Amino acid sequence: MLVEDNTSEGGKVFDYFIQGLILISLISFSIETFPDNSFETKQVLFITELFCVTIFSAEYILRVAVAKNPLKYIFSFYGMIDLLAILPFYLNAAIDLRAARVFRVFRIFTALKLIRYNRALHRFHIAAGIVKEEMILFFITTAILIFLAASGIYFFENEAQPELFCSIFHSLWWAVATLTTVGYGDIFPITPGGKVFTFFVLIIGIGVVTVPAGLVASAIAKARKLDDEEQQKLKN
Amino acid sequence: MLVEDNTSEGGKVFDYFIQGLILISLISFSIETFPDNSFETKQVLFITELFCVTIFSAEYILRVAVAKNPLKYIFSFYGMIDLLAILPFYLNAAIDLRAARVFRVFRIFTALKLIRYNRALHRFHIAAGIVKEEMILFFITTAILIFLAASGIYFFENEAQPELFCSIFHSLWWAVATLTTVGYGDIFPITPGGKVFTFFVLIIGIGVVTVPAGLVASAIAKARKLDDEEQQKLKN
Amino acid sequence: MLVEDNTSEGGKVFDYFIQGLILISLISFSIETFPDNSFETKQVLFITELFCVTIFSAEYILRVAVAKNPLKYIFSFYGMIDLLAILPFYLNAAIDLRAARVFRVFRIFTALKLIRYNRALHRFHIAAGIVKEEMILFFITTAILIFLAASGIYFFENEAQPELFCSIFHSLWWAVATLTTVGYGDIFPITPGGKVFTFFVLIIGIGVVTVPAGLVASAIAKARKLDDEEQQKLKN
Amino acid sequence: MLVEDNTSEGGKVFDYFIQGLILISLISFSIETFPDNSFETKQVLFITELFCVTIFSAEYILRVAVAKNPLKYIFSFYGMIDLLAILPFYLNAAIDLRAARVFRVFRIFTALKLIRYNRALHRFHIAAGIVKEEMILFFITTAILIFLAASGIYFFENEAQPELFCSIFHSLWWAVATLTTVGYGDIFPITPGGKVFTFFVLIIGIGVVTVPAGLVASAIAKARKLDDEEQQKLKN
Repeated sequence: MLVEDNTSEGGKVFDYFIQGLILISLISFSIETFPDNSFETKQVLFITELFCVTIFSAEYILRVAVAKNPLKYIFSFYGMIDLLAILPFYLNAAIDLRAARVFRVFRIFTALKLIRYNRALHRFHIAAGIVKEEMILFFITTAILIFLAASGIYFFENEAQPELFCSIFHSLWWAVATLTTVGYGDIFPITPGGKVFTFFVLIIGIGVVTVPAGLVASAIAKARKLDDEEQQKLKN
Repeated sequence: MLVEDNTSEGGKVFDYFIQGLILISLISFSIETFPDNSFETKQVLFITELFCVTIFSAEYILRVAVAKNPLKYIFSFYGMIDLLAILPFYLNAAIDLRAARVFRVFRIFTALKLIRYNRALHRFHIAAGIVKEEMILFFITTAILIFLAASGIYFFENEAQPELFCSIFHSLWWAVATLTTVGYGDIFPITPGGKVFTFFVLIIGIGVVTVPAGLVASAIAKARKLDDEEQQKLKN
Repeated sequence: MLVEDNTSEGGKVFDYFIQGLILISLISFSIETFPDNSFETKQVLFITELFCVTIFSAEYILRVAVAKNPLKYIFSFYGMIDLLAILPFYLNAAIDLRAARVFRVFRIFTALKLIRYNRALHRFHIAAGIVKEEMILFFITTAILIFLAASGIYFFENEAQPELFCSIFHSLWWAVATLTTVGYGDIFPITPGGKVFTFFVLIIGIGVVTVPAGLVASAIAKARKLDDEEQQKLKN
Repeated sequence: MLVEDNTSEGGKVFDYFIQGLILISLISFSIETFPDNSFETKQVLFITELFCVTIFSAEYILRVAVAKNPLKYIFSFYGMIDLLAILPFYLNAAIDLRAARVFRVFRIFTALKLIRYNRALHRFHIAAGIVKEEMILFFITTAILIFLAASGIYFFENEAQPELFCSIFHSLWWAVATLTTVGYGDIFPITPGGKVFTFFVLIIGIGVVTVPAGLVASAIAKARKLDDEEQQKLKN
């Protein structure tokens, strides 16, 4: 079957067609959010969506029919995404359109479908397995660091800027923007104490926040090595 | 004993209970900082804190009683944190509440307790040992670089922006925000000389400031390798 | 021939001369963009350009004449750049000067000529081959992530800031500036939901966006190793 | 001699004393830049400087006298820095104090003296040798990228923001602040074309600009390995 097999000529063409359709549906979804769309634009967008949803629905039904274990497919990660990609359309028709606008945001998950068709993800799964524990530890460390940074800056800046640093929850926003080095400039320390504290937070924090990227990179390098050795064995 | 042993079933349940309590106490600590809490909220927060401090105090006394060398525990890093987590509450009761609000900030150290219970930290300790020397060198280099950057920008920008770059100490804040690439936008060069100087500072500085993260990542990769080999030996 | 050979004494002198000329032509191109150049400046710039284009044209004709397969050179990557570096000048003379100002921007491609003469690029080509697949995957992942981030923030911030987050396309600009941690500060979330969303986007996103740099670095380290082994073999 | 030998007990004490003096002299230099120092402060600063320069001068004379080849020491990198650290003081006494204020900025070089006394720099020298070529290539690539980015953004934004992007030289400032992800927020694109261009510049540019840090990190890891092997050999 075309939907299952992505090594044959026909399967590949089908895959590229679906990928193109996902891209088109995402672009039309984005255009829909413009506040001042003309009636003609809205009609074109609706027809585009109708077409996409029809194909996606047909694909979904086919996949369920073809699957050896239909229930397993339906409740799998990709099965749920496939369903989420078409469900909002049918719900919109049943319930009031404006109230259901919120559900529409789930259509963005169709973007994940693009990933599905890529076999090179195999190495990433190996790499993910290697760094899983370290990543969790770093997320916990990052969370603690952000909390400590927020508490500290609240202590230093609350009196000088009671509007911006009015509670630890407000300071958390500063901690996130600072430790990730985004620094929008909407909130920053103005007292000497707060600035010195920021210096120490950044010197320690940048190390902690950017280490995971390095870990992922080295894990991918190792996964590539393992994958190459595996390929070598299969050839011999 | 439950407090000491974290491999048995009961020990694990106890650990998760304490971790949950720390989280609750941190959230209640954060909510307390809101400037406009109602009387009801304040009461709920006080009761929450009373409960947490009671448990933490009982845990602390138990740990001291159970320890083979009570003094060693009391003056250990975690012993100090355990004490700091409960002390502000008792001090608040003895001294005037408002004056002691400053001590309360130490309760954020309870967040560090979360780390205590995590065994995977072992590898991080190995990695820390590997990169210790380089990290110190990089911190010194970073400090020198920040000082040189601040002195240089003071020289270029002092005349054009005497308010912002009014001394090297004020310029240090610019150097920190720039070399860490946070760039809040509250202070930046406007003269051509200052901009060219910033270019060179950044090209050199980014390398220096972000290298420690790479060093930590590669040290963790090596620590994982050493740890795996150790585990392998123990099995054979 | 001098233009082809860059190992002989004469070839090296010729190469450095051409590189110097490219630098001069780029600086003169940049000065031309000043809005208030005097007539004298404009004349000096025109003479500089005339000189550069004359040399570049002579070099181009020589390269075509010397090449074993002239058509292959003309349609090669560097052949196209060599042509693009001189073409705008001749087009300017034929068509109205002001309308052709747009073509002038292509002269910036002469900067790429600088790369041409560098032999150390060999390792980079090896490294590029190693990480090619991962890079494509990361670009796709980055694109999906930016789209998801833009859709999400649109959902959270559209009502609070309809001017800035007026569609997903406008939110994309926020997603790009935030995930790359540039954070200009022209657009940022103000609602609590948007800020919490930004936190999660950044924690996940920084890893994804900065991993490619780590991959390139480790690939270059491996390419250096392969290159060293190759050199070793040639010596034995 | 104490000044030469940093392995004996006395030599170590002397080194720490000099390092402390450098720190004190740098802090006093920074305090001097405050625009509103009182007369008392200025006197204390002058006495501090007098003391530091006296010691540094004595140390310099001793080093020249002790050196096997005095001229070699005088014209060495550290010899020049040692001289630069004391020269401004004597020049200030001879020439008008206010005119010589500019020379005073050279005193910041005393910070480099701190590096001198650190033996662990050896590995960094090895690492520097390993990545030298790649670093130069990356600096060239970065320079080309910044130039291309500046030219491109000038083309897109010049008409919309003629004040900010008034020439390629002005756009270079934007390119530097953006590619290093500092993003002060004083200059950024507002046209859709400029924003899309910024997206591509950042996706490509972040890789290029942050790779050197990864290269340095992996080179240091390799240098550590080589250094360990060397130490191992010396023991056997």
